[in-house]
Amino acid sequence: MRPVALLTDFGLADHYVGVLHAVIEREAPGAVRIDLGHGLQAGDIWDACFQLRCAWPHLPADCVVMAVVDPGVGTGRRAVAVTIGTRSLVAPDNGIATAVLEASAAVVLEWRRMGLDQPSKTFHGRGLFAPAAARLACGADSRNFGEEIAINALVACPLPDPVVTSSVVEGVILHIDGFGNLVTNVRGDEVESSAMATWHAGRTSRRVETYGDAQPDEVVLIEGSAGYLELAVNCGSAADATALERGDTVVFSKGDD
Amino acid sequence: MRPVALLTDFGLADHYVGVLHAVIEREAPGAVRIDLGHGLQAGDIWDACFQLRCAWPHLPADCVVMAVVDPGVGTGRRAVAVTIGTRSLVAPDNGIATAVLEASAAVVLEWRRMGLDQPSKTFHGRGLFAPAAARLACGADSRNFGEEIAINALVACPLPDPVVTSSVVEGVILHIDGFGNLVTNVRGDEVESSAMATWHAGRTSRRVETYGDAQPDEVVLIEGSAGYLELAVNCGSAADATALERGDTVVFSKGDD
Amino acid sequence: MRPVALLTDFGLADHYVGVLHAVIEREAPGAVRIDLGHGLQAGDIWDACFQLRCAWPHLPADCVVMAVVDPGVGTGRRAVAVTIGTRSLVAPDNGIATAVLEASAAVVLEWRRMGLDQPSKTFHGRGLFAPAAARLACGADSRNFGEEIAINALVACPLPDPVVTSSVVEGVILHIDGFGNLVTNVRGDEVESSAMATWHAGRTSRRVETYGDAQPDEVVLIEGSAGYLELAVNCGSAADATALERGDTVVFSKGDD
Repeated sequence: MRPVALLTDFGLADHYVGVLHAVIEREAPGAVRIDLGHGLQAGDIWDACFQLRCAWPHLPADCVVMAVVDPGVGTGRRAVAVTIGTRSLVAPDNGIATAVLEASAAVVLEWRRMGLDQPSKTFHGRGLFAPAAARLACGADSRNFGEEIAINALVACPLPDPVVTSSVVEGVILHIDGFGNLVTNVRGDEVESSAMATWHAGRTSRRVETYGDAQPDEVVLIEGSAGYLELAVNCGSAADATALERGDTVVFSKGDD
Repeated sequence: MRPVALLTDFGLADHYVGVLHAVIEREAPGAVRIDLGHGLQAGDIWDACFQLRCAWPHLPADCVVMAVVDPGVGTGRRAVAVTIGTRSLVAPDNGIATAVLEASAAVVLEWRRMGLDQPSKTFHGRGLFAPAAARLACGADSRNFGEEIAINALVACPLPDPVVTSSVVEGVILHIDGFGNLVTNVRGDEVESSAMATWHAGRTSRRVETYGDAQPDEVVLIEGSAGYLELAVNCGSAADATALERGDTVVFSKGDD
Repeated sequence: MRPVALLTDFGLADHYVGVLHAVIEREAPGAVRIDLGHGLQAGDIWDACFQLRCAWPHLPADCVVMAVVDPGVGTGRRAVAVTIGTRSLVAPDNGIATAVLEASAAVVLEWRRMGLDQPSKTFHGRGLFAPAAARLACGADSRNFGEEIAINALVACPLPDPVVTSSVVEGVILHIDGFGNLVTNVRGDEVESSAMATWHAGRTSRRVETYGDAQPDEVVLIEGSAGYLELAVNCGSAADATALERGDTVVFSKGDD
């Protein structure tokens, strides 16, 4: 039985996430379930893509991932199952399915063809994605779920790439984590260790190796655990210290090394 | 081994929920555990009943449910195990045990008769309900836990039913979910698809099929995933848009169809 | 396979906790995982120690606990695996490893000796503690993880003990739980049942047995589920009622009994 990982914006105040777990257990008894998080902002596809990209390398090799941030639920947006290496991903076709590279196949989830009851028009997580994930956990072939479509027909992931010029790398804040760290889309190996980050009108941060290398209250540049450069304050919140927001620009000098 | 589902108001800031899981694993090693949610308002029996009612149809057929919202812990209120179809429910006898229909048997949980240590007067979840759930998971018969009592001796579920007249259905907001949807106690099949909902002084909402059918910022009426009619704003919060609160009245015309 | 319990300050808004679960499942497939909580304040070693101490007696006998509140991640602080009775604990050596008594062995976690990739300098939970916990779950001997060190070389738990004089016991508020209960470091059996608690300038609380014994809005003294005396308001918040904070002093008369 393949493990199933869940990522949603359903929050933990309601029974929604619990019901997803219940459906998976009912349809795939004993399947291992892993919560990748349910605290995304409602409808926040960007963050779903970002969190999925960060968690992906650490998942079990045969993992089935169910990532449901689905503001278009009940409309004509497609639901898909994508094969990526030895893993599978079920998600609405709104950019999430292309957040992680290397898909080798994509299938549209069709509830009739899957023999399911018509899913609630407000909760495809329960009526479509969880049953699909459970079947994949049990070894089903996603090609039995519906029509195969071309990979390049999938909606493109909305996360921006950094802009690289001869002298600088222009990045964007992709995510503000629970510690207040400001995570950019620039990977640590794209700039040298002597690089400086410039944000706001001329405010700059030097790059350090660990939180402990920072002075008290200093906003430093550090390579975070997913490989992205982030602005951070040791034992504090860079979000509070800088008032930067998601989507704001951070410019990195390439450094002298 | 039967799976165990947990619903409480213990929150996730403390070790309380973790300890419930630990006790279940200790007493029923390997039992599947499903979190139905722990974010209920402290002492909110209404919401416990509502969430349980919504999740119930989707639980595994042989599920043991432990639902503990227990403002009367340590007083004379009874703790019970109720058999409902092929499922079991352990809960304080404060209305939760009758939130879901069709109970066929009810037993009072008696710690002495169960051979348990006297439970902490502030945490029966750990010392009484979790051990009871674990034993049920292992196949125990609840009649060994204490005296059987009549179903109609159980405290009645406090959730109000809608009031149906010849021309309207008068409902009440039962729940505000994490997206700000206002869920009423009126089921979608109780009024026609042309029905209008009236709330506040003459403010009305038309019924739509999906969130995507709504205009921007429009407060619409939609059948939610549990079958109840709810006021919703697509990609927004009906709670914020209307300032309605739980317990407020919503009047539904029956429609022309 | 031994069960693994997790306690962190990583919160549930990010993928961090999900990745810990993924790594444990990847390295110890099928291992039972128990979340003891991830809502600790960032860097709050005090609370990690407190929560661990409360949960400890209820864990499975052979449990592996991974407790990661780690403001010193990436600095020279040691990471350790401690053997306590039949249980194991992996944690940064910042006081958490000594929060629970009776350790019989302590080993420094050395990623090279464990054959691990160099862990991210900001996330030892993923690259060091979770792999260590997974190996212990699979039956590994912690002495293979690195050098053994003396128990008394571990950093001491920072939680203060109460001060006992001939007439009073002077305690400290260790924790404010999600219900607003103010949990002190004085155990219920350290003072008599007739004891009074004095807090602020002469405000006092009488001791009761259950929440239900309190008058409406009365701040009472009660023995909580972990055995500590706490100030509580039935169906309310003692934190709001008293404005007391963690670290504040509460003085207990010993009582007449």
